[in-house]
Amino acid sequence: MGGIIDGCPSGLEVDLDFIQAELDRRKPGQSHIVSQRKEKDKVEFLAGIFEGKSTGTPIGFIIRNENQKPQDYDHLMDVFRPSHADYTYAAKYGNRDWQGGGRSSARETICRVVAGAIAKLILKEFGIKIYGYTSQVGDIQLKKHYSKLDLTKTNGSIVRCPDELIAEMMIRRIEMVRKEGDTIGGVVSCLITGTPVGLGEPVFDKLHADLGKAMLSINAVKGFEYGSGFEGISMTGSEHNDLFFVKQGEVHTHTNHSGGIQGGISNGEDIYFRVAFKSVATIMKTQSSINSKSEQVEIKGKGRHDPCVLPRAVPVVEAMAALVLVDHLLRNQTTKLEYISTC
Amino acid sequence: MGGIIDGCPSGLEVDLDFIQAELDRRKPGQSHIVSQRKEKDKVEFLAGIFEGKSTGTPIGFIIRNENQKPQDYDHLMDVFRPSHADYTYAAKYGNRDWQGGGRSSARETICRVVAGAIAKLILKEFGIKIYGYTSQVGDIQLKKHYSKLDLTKTNGSIVRCPDELIAEMMIRRIEMVRKEGDTIGGVVSCLITGTPVGLGEPVFDKLHADLGKAMLSINAVKGFEYGSGFEGISMTGSEHNDLFFVKQGEVHTHTNHSGGIQGGISNGEDIYFRVAFKSVATIMKTQSSINSKSEQVEIKGKGRHDPCVLPRAVPVVEAMAALVLVDHLLRNQTTKLEYISTC
Amino acid sequence: MGGIIDGCPSGLEVDLDFIQAELDRRKPGQSHIVSQRKEKDKVEFLAGIFEGKSTGTPIGFIIRNENQKPQDYDHLMDVFRPSHADYTYAAKYGNRDWQGGGRSSARETICRVVAGAIAKLILKEFGIKIYGYTSQVGDIQLKKHYSKLDLTKTNGSIVRCPDELIAEMMIRRIEMVRKEGDTIGGVVSCLITGTPVGLGEPVFDKLHADLGKAMLSINAVKGFEYGSGFEGISMTGSEHNDLFFVKQGEVHTHTNHSGGIQGGISNGEDIYFRVAFKSVATIMKTQSSINSKSEQVEIKGKGRHDPCVLPRAVPVVEAMAALVLVDHLLRNQTTKLEYISTC
Amino acid sequence: MGGIIDGCPSGLEVDLDFIQAELDRRKPGQSHIVSQRKEKDKVEFLAGIFEGKSTGTPIGFIIRNENQKPQDYDHLMDVFRPSHADYTYAAKYGNRDWQGGGRSSARETICRVVAGAIAKLILKEFGIKIYGYTSQVGDIQLKKHYSKLDLTKTNGSIVRCPDELIAEMMIRRIEMVRKEGDTIGGVVSCLITGTPVGLGEPVFDKLHADLGKAMLSINAVKGFEYGSGFEGISMTGSEHNDLFFVKQGEVHTHTNHSGGIQGGISNGEDIYFRVAFKSVATIMKTQSSINSKSEQVEIKGKGRHDPCVLPRAVPVVEAMAALVLVDHLLRNQTTKLEYISTC
Repeated sequence: MGGIIDGCPSGLEVDLDFIQAELDRRKPGQSHIVSQRKEKDKVEFLAGIFEGKSTGTPIGFIIRNENQKPQDYDHLMDVFRPSHADYTYAAKYGNRDWQGGGRSSARETICRVVAGAIAKLILKEFGIKIYGYTSQVGDIQLKKHYSKLDLTKTNGSIVRCPDELIAEMMIRRIEMVRKEGDTIGGVVSCLITGTPVGLGEPVFDKLHADLGKAMLSINAVKGFEYGSGFEGISMTGSEHNDLFFVKQGEVHTHTNHSGGIQGGISNGEDIYFRVAFKSVATIMKTQSSINSKSEQVEIKGKGRHDPCVLPRAVPVVEAMAALVLVDHLLRNQTTKLEYISTC
Repeated sequence: MGGIIDGCPSGLEVDLDFIQAELDRRKPGQSHIVSQRKEKDKVEFLAGIFEGKSTGTPIGFIIRNENQKPQDYDHLMDVFRPSHADYTYAAKYGNRDWQGGGRSSARETICRVVAGAIAKLILKEFGIKIYGYTSQVGDIQLKKHYSKLDLTKTNGSIVRCPDELIAEMMIRRIEMVRKEGDTIGGVVSCLITGTPVGLGEPVFDKLHADLGKAMLSINAVKGFEYGSGFEGISMTGSEHNDLFFVKQGEVHTHTNHSGGIQGGISNGEDIYFRVAFKSVATIMKTQSSINSKSEQVEIKGKGRHDPCVLPRAVPVVEAMAALVLVDHLLRNQTTKLEYISTC
Repeated sequence: MGGIIDGCPSGLEVDLDFIQAELDRRKPGQSHIVSQRKEKDKVEFLAGIFEGKSTGTPIGFIIRNENQKPQDYDHLMDVFRPSHADYTYAAKYGNRDWQGGGRSSARETICRVVAGAIAKLILKEFGIKIYGYTSQVGDIQLKKHYSKLDLTKTNGSIVRCPDELIAEMMIRRIEMVRKEGDTIGGVVSCLITGTPVGLGEPVFDKLHADLGKAMLSINAVKGFEYGSGFEGISMTGSEHNDLFFVKQGEVHTHTNHSGGIQGGISNGEDIYFRVAFKSVATIMKTQSSINSKSEQVEIKGKGRHDPCVLPRAVPVVEAMAALVLVDHLLRNQTTKLEYISTC
Repeated sequence: MGGIIDGCPSGLEVDLDFIQAELDRRKPGQSHIVSQRKEKDKVEFLAGIFEGKSTGTPIGFIIRNENQKPQDYDHLMDVFRPSHADYTYAAKYGNRDWQGGGRSSARETICRVVAGAIAKLILKEFGIKIYGYTSQVGDIQLKKHYSKLDLTKTNGSIVRCPDELIAEMMIRRIEMVRKEGDTIGGVVSCLITGTPVGLGEPVFDKLHADLGKAMLSINAVKGFEYGSGFEGISMTGSEHNDLFFVKQGEVHTHTNHSGGIQGGISNGEDIYFRVAFKSVATIMKTQSSINSKSEQVEIKGKGRHDPCVLPRAVPVVEAMAALVLVDHLLRNQTTKLEYISTC
């Protein structure tokens, strides 16, 4: 895996330890409830950083895949796994790399985490922070409002849930499906604090539209909602409207059903959203399927897969959120004539 | 309002009556449960169509606003309406056109319907059909699976719900909130049939990611889910996986939790998704707010606003879906070497 | 004709008189050596300007074509004029609007002048000025270095040449070809002063590459060179290199063969370039050609065409240069971390 | 060096030997008139090719720099070389990688040759061929029309000039400047045959505008002209117009001053253009310059530089032309409704 990150401003101190730590939050083998593959996931930067700082050049990087076991995939050469991308890739492209899933493998998200880590370093300069956490696994749901949670505890939890009791229940649920050779889905919630007023474009590139696309582009995501979301539709306008007030010269709202975004543009309040992940398609049970000759076959998952993608999905959600925010932060620099400066 | 539609292939018979009919499905004043503004919403094409056919040139058009009542907006010149874009626009741009809401007005969606109608004419050539309908208003929910509905009845319903009984309940709910000077939200469901296998790009521009962004870019939308969506997260992999079978040489799946998209690429099954709309922010009740001098003020909606945006949102959802599909249909033309032809 | 200008920052005072004056520099009928069509070329703005200032919204505008004579084009319905776009358009699109040339008409450049005028207003805020002038008509060449010219005299010359003697010769050359029913080409030279250091991107979007593309996109342009250009290739490196010196804390170069751009990025010196225009294809002489049935036909120009496009091309060249510079000015705002500000 | 090639259709047989041969045409050390650096310039593909064919995935590749001598650049750490990008990079980005020139090094063009080689393999499928050759070095000019040249001889000439006599003179000119520690410029001419009718977009993305930008983006390029170019401006319309005729059902023109492109769209005739390269800025003579503290310094080139870039520029010009043509070939697939197919 590897990629090119374009658009990073020059002069950023690129904290390599932080980037590696972000990768470690995503890597397999970190606990007993995720895939037991043993990848080092070490990133090698090839361009764009000089003497510890970004140069303004596209940042190129590679992460070598060191623990690949091609034999884990041999039985898939000719088979279309159910609810995987095998069939659609074969139909779309004619030929496909069936070893490890190629681009359709969730391993692809490792590149998003690298880019997202650099984006977070940029956002940090402006006081913007992103907190993802697992808020649901199967039916086990963390219902507390984010303001009642201690989000510094998320990372200490192997399931990335900041509430210890709920985390314990989630872990048991995952252990259970794993024992059955099955898998389960869940929800990642995400909070963004410190966003300045004014990020987002008014029509097609609304801030929440770009956040939504970014999340929906992550493997296994089936839904996105922000602010009051699907639940809020039963509220009347008089209940839902967020009334303004001014405190110490700053404009705020009493409630925040808007989720920090009004008319597609950030209003300075907390941004929060929820992302639905389906269960992993690769299961250790026998399933019927077809092969490329349209023959009915039986297949059974091999290899070292995740029984639940949620724990490892949290840093990916955060990374994509960070990239969207940096894009809009940069884009906003050309909005007002008075912002524009010459060297 | 007006716009330029780029990328329409040449040689399309542009059915002007159809385009106008689509606009009529969106226009205000068409029933007692929507805004009573009396706009004609007639579209004038300025370029790109010659002797009834598209020329391959960008298609330019204008829709004159003939029933504008600027005095309806006079009281808003200096006020930031709650849960509107007034404050964020003012902060982002420094100055803003407060008459009618400018770009943040849902009137902007009229342009989407024009472009979407042309997109539908293209899709029709390939047998792709789009059926939007109102599936929820406040707590009133249409729970039937789409296959149990007669979607030809949608357009005959003023609330755009194909089930007559539920439609009646929805209409009463809207009448009730309107009487109270209040507003209510809901859900538009959408079904797409006849999509060929292979539309969608594998990583960031997954078909459902682009559909999601398109929907989230519509005013008042708070959430998007496709296929099994948020509910499906409690299913295990063995329940959720859509098993393949072959019938008359065609690949199909027994279930369709995938919502017709696997790995971001259409698999030929029905595509379906749900879009959450919040209640309209403009209410006919007195609310507290602030003005541009940060003073606390009281405001009350004037004008002729929608008590519920759902009935008029259905053609907008369909239009955006059509545009996304045409984009991906065109994009897919360059995927395989064998597709490429020279004059 | 009409268009949408995207990306204009909010807060710009939009001087409508200046925009109209720019259009007047391009419009037909302004002297005896250009087309005698009598267009008013009045621009109507539809969106994006409120109370005299840009709002940050895309700026929409229309220029109605009031003196069109479709009968001037009747004889062209089925004919492919030599060295026009008739044949290539027909082949590419299948159908084409033959009345007035559609998109391939140089009338299209009117939209460039509107957008360019707004771009010039932005550049003015930063002290950047653009001076186009006719430096060659047929064999009549203005060989003086731009620093020896009084460029304030350009606009007073109907052929847009600041040297009165050469201008007179150019005018005679144009009168001569017009009398013969023929046409002639020439060169527009362009000088840009006051560009800050740092505009331009290092690889594909070098400042001169974008200037070159912009110029080559203008109808009838056959070549572009900047700085030392084609002539400079015979110079050795030791002759061509521009040696640096520092004066009052500012970096300058003794010579400027680089044309103000080094490595694709502006270095603060004068930017200058030359644009070659071929003779107008429509002539008042009988020529052989073919029609859409591949039959050999004879055609002869009708209507009121330009014997030489140069006088009217000068504001178009300037407009395109202004647009490129504004694009790079905006783009440069995100280059350095220290440039980035939040509201 | 390395990069990602996006947009290659799936199913292309990727001839690795051909790609390497293209790199060998560009690599240093191949003759006594170019840089004596000894790079292997071996390309390693990381993604996008499976079992010898393109998969439709972005194609990632790296070319390791194996013969770098950082000490050759030590003396440049703090110095702005005349007519290099050192000063503009430092001003634009604040910090820069001074070892080897980073992105501003012509070594960057190696990636263009890799991508161009793949583009050529695509074009080959459609019978499109590209022939670049050196037509001028300093004052030594190859004046023959391309139809009088045997372009199969180009590659056999170390200066890439197909005329043996002129080639000999060019080589002597280069030997002379090299002996003086100096450098010289020249012209690459390029011919493209077999282009189908219809490539190019009508307004901003005219085929020749994109070719021009592509060429101007190559290091050291100062000018671009196509067809009749700068010389043709003295021709009258009646001389310049290319008259159509029909032969065996195909439309052709008697002359080809248009250079195979009319109204920005290819007309099926030969496309030809010329690209001006200035002399290399690094010379082995002492020059005055400044350092980053604005102090006057003396510098002298070290290392193993090219006395004339032309011989190695030919494959770069061809590569960029190939990329532009493939882009337009792909883009053209969506032009006409009748072109569009579903799986």
